[in-house]
Amino acid sequence: MRTFSDRLMDAIDDKRTVVCVGLDPRLGLIPAFLKQESVSKYGETLEAVSACYLAFNKGIIDAVKDKVALVKPQIAFYEAYGAPGVKAFEETVRYARSAGLIVIEDAKRNDIGSTAEAYSSGHIGEVEFWKGKTRVYDVDAITVSPYLGFDGVQPFLDDCRIHQKGIFVLVKTSNPSSGQLQDLLHVVDCPWMNEVRQGLADDGTAPLFSNMRQLGEADKVTVSPNYMSMAINVKMWGDGVLGERGYSSVGAVVGATYPSEARVLRKIMPKTYFLVPGYGAQGGSAKDAMACLNSDGYGAIISSSRDIDYAYRAEPFCRSHSEDTFDGAASEATTAMTDAISKAMKSAGKYPW
Amino acid sequence: MRTFSDRLMDAIDDKRTVVCVGLDPRLGLIPAFLKQESVSKYGETLEAVSACYLAFNKGIIDAVKDKVALVKPQIAFYEAYGAPGVKAFEETVRYARSAGLIVIEDAKRNDIGSTAEAYSSGHIGEVEFWKGKTRVYDVDAITVSPYLGFDGVQPFLDDCRIHQKGIFVLVKTSNPSSGQLQDLLHVVDCPWMNEVRQGLADDGTAPLFSNMRQLGEADKVTVSPNYMSMAINVKMWGDGVLGERGYSSVGAVVGATYPSEARVLRKIMPKTYFLVPGYGAQGGSAKDAMACLNSDGYGAIISSSRDIDYAYRAEPFCRSHSEDTFDGAASEATTAMTDAISKAMKSAGKYPW
Repeated sequence: MRTFSDRLMDAIDDKRTVVCVGLDPRLGLIPAFLKQESVSKYGETLEAVSACYLAFNKGIIDAVKDKVALVKPQIAFYEAYGAPGVKAFEETVRYARSAGLIVIEDAKRNDIGSTAEAYSSGHIGEVEFWKGKTRVYDVDAITVSPYLGFDGVQPFLDDCRIHQKGIFVLVKTSNPSSGQLQDLLHVVDCPWMNEVRQGLADDGTAPLFSNMRQLGEADKVTVSPNYMSMAINVKMWGDGVLGERGYSSVGAVVGATYPSEARVLRKIMPKTYFLVPGYGAQGGSAKDAMACLNSDGYGAIISSSRDIDYAYRAEPFCRSHSEDTFDGAASEATTAMTDAISKAMKSAGKYPW
Repeated sequence: MRTFSDRLMDAIDDKRTVVCVGLDPRLGLIPAFLKQESVSKYGETLEAVSACYLAFNKGIIDAVKDKVALVKPQIAFYEAYGAPGVKAFEETVRYARSAGLIVIEDAKRNDIGSTAEAYSSGHIGEVEFWKGKTRVYDVDAITVSPYLGFDGVQPFLDDCRIHQKGIFVLVKTSNPSSGQLQDLLHVVDCPWMNEVRQGLADDGTAPLFSNMRQLGEADKVTVSPNYMSMAINVKMWGDGVLGERGYSSVGAVVGATYPSEARVLRKIMPKTYFLVPGYGAQGGSAKDAMACLNSDGYGAIISSSRDIDYAYRAEPFCRSHSEDTFDGAASEATTAMTDAISKAMKSAGKYPW
């Protein structure tokens, strides 16, 4: 059975690019003529927001569908407008999939087992319905946040297997403060580990921070950053969902803004597909992103949202485009990005086509 | 200006209980007569699911509104049914608030700064609209997941201040595998920290796990579990949103299933309100939950969902109730829980009324 990772790689081969276009509609940035059309139909309502978000997305999708294999709608921007916003999200997903694109939902969902199951069923699986079951969002893959550990991820893994879907687990995110938790160095092993662990069962009568323990025999104490342990988990979780082409349907989110970390993570998770945000607007360069690719030129998807969706507003595309041709600007911005990424892949010796 | 934490404590005083009722509708567990009513009106559609979820919630809310101060709808169960499900969530929130209840949305949202802003605006703040701004979900508080660090939390903090709302940040969750990341012992301080940190910038040419470093001078190495560092962050984040009654509007999620950890967390975050899941179905006892309360009897909300929503299906309430009186069973289950919690509070010397 073809897995998500197999479909993903075939689609990438077909388009010959690892670029993914984000679909992040923001009311203040959408062309006025699209907003006017929606308001004239629905008045100044949430439904009008929903309608112009969908119209905007259709324009972007039509402009890039022949150039890229993937789109990544960020549900936060839709969900913020309530049920009508979610309706626009669902219709965007349907439109993109019918255009032959693979849809990765950026949702970063997470909860305890029974609740994670509800998230997974709705987004990548099947929900209980009146007779039997039904699919709701039916995206190809979804991003998942791992703070709760394995039993919050398990339901998604099951749906990946059963429905040939994928997930991308946050490992090292692209934002400035990602290190606050992700980079903390934790003790992998030390001789007194059990005693230290028992210290955590402290009844709390000791003074504040009594549960911070001092370690002995340091020469035998090994430490590692949290994101590396998470990477080891993601690798293990993914080994059960390997595709015919050698990659897993359990991916990892690794920011283009942290190339040094990416190099190490690439080694820890050789068969894991990386979803790489942070290119462009967030400061990650094409060269930075190369650290996320394996030597075979596969293993990473490089995503950009604002720079493509709103290219018509920014240099250099605003010179030859206005609101009316936002889609043309997005098309040119996509070509510029794919060219830059392909160039970097070639000079890194990671261009497979 | 009265903060969320002030309103929360006033409401708790008014009802004289710290119990919070979860609103977790599941199609398979909802009384058949409610489902039939919805299907006869809307057919076997998602709209019918939405309608019977709302009808079920109204029954539970009417049954408990005079007994508790708070309800906690888990958005996963609504969101799983797409836009119609989200509509049921929004209408449930409105109905609960109009009944004088404080609504805590369990959503565990998280993302990078600009996207976290979209989540926060939609759920507890105001979104950009056709003229000016508008509120969408307008819940009183929302749960937030901290894997991405501070800049993913900042937008929520701003809305807490501006709109007198609250957040509850995941610190030590109630699920079995919460320790997988949350309990990892990290190095708080050691003499070689900079060298160890530099090791993380390894170019990746070293063998796998080369970035795991061995520490020296162990007697000077101090370690602490990740959840404790997160607790210290939550305390700091909350100091900017303190209410007249001494507590912060930035709360923490601390599972009733980990009382030893809760005792320590209570000391680290004295002014932080704990949202305590895990009571009942997940195995946390009333006595366990007491560790989350301060000696003044405040500082914790103890939540239960399945045991109350579906009391009519389980012992002992199923003896005197059937589907038709699911609300009566929920009412009795709520009374039983509030009595058990109050009893435990009294014997712990933490009953403020």
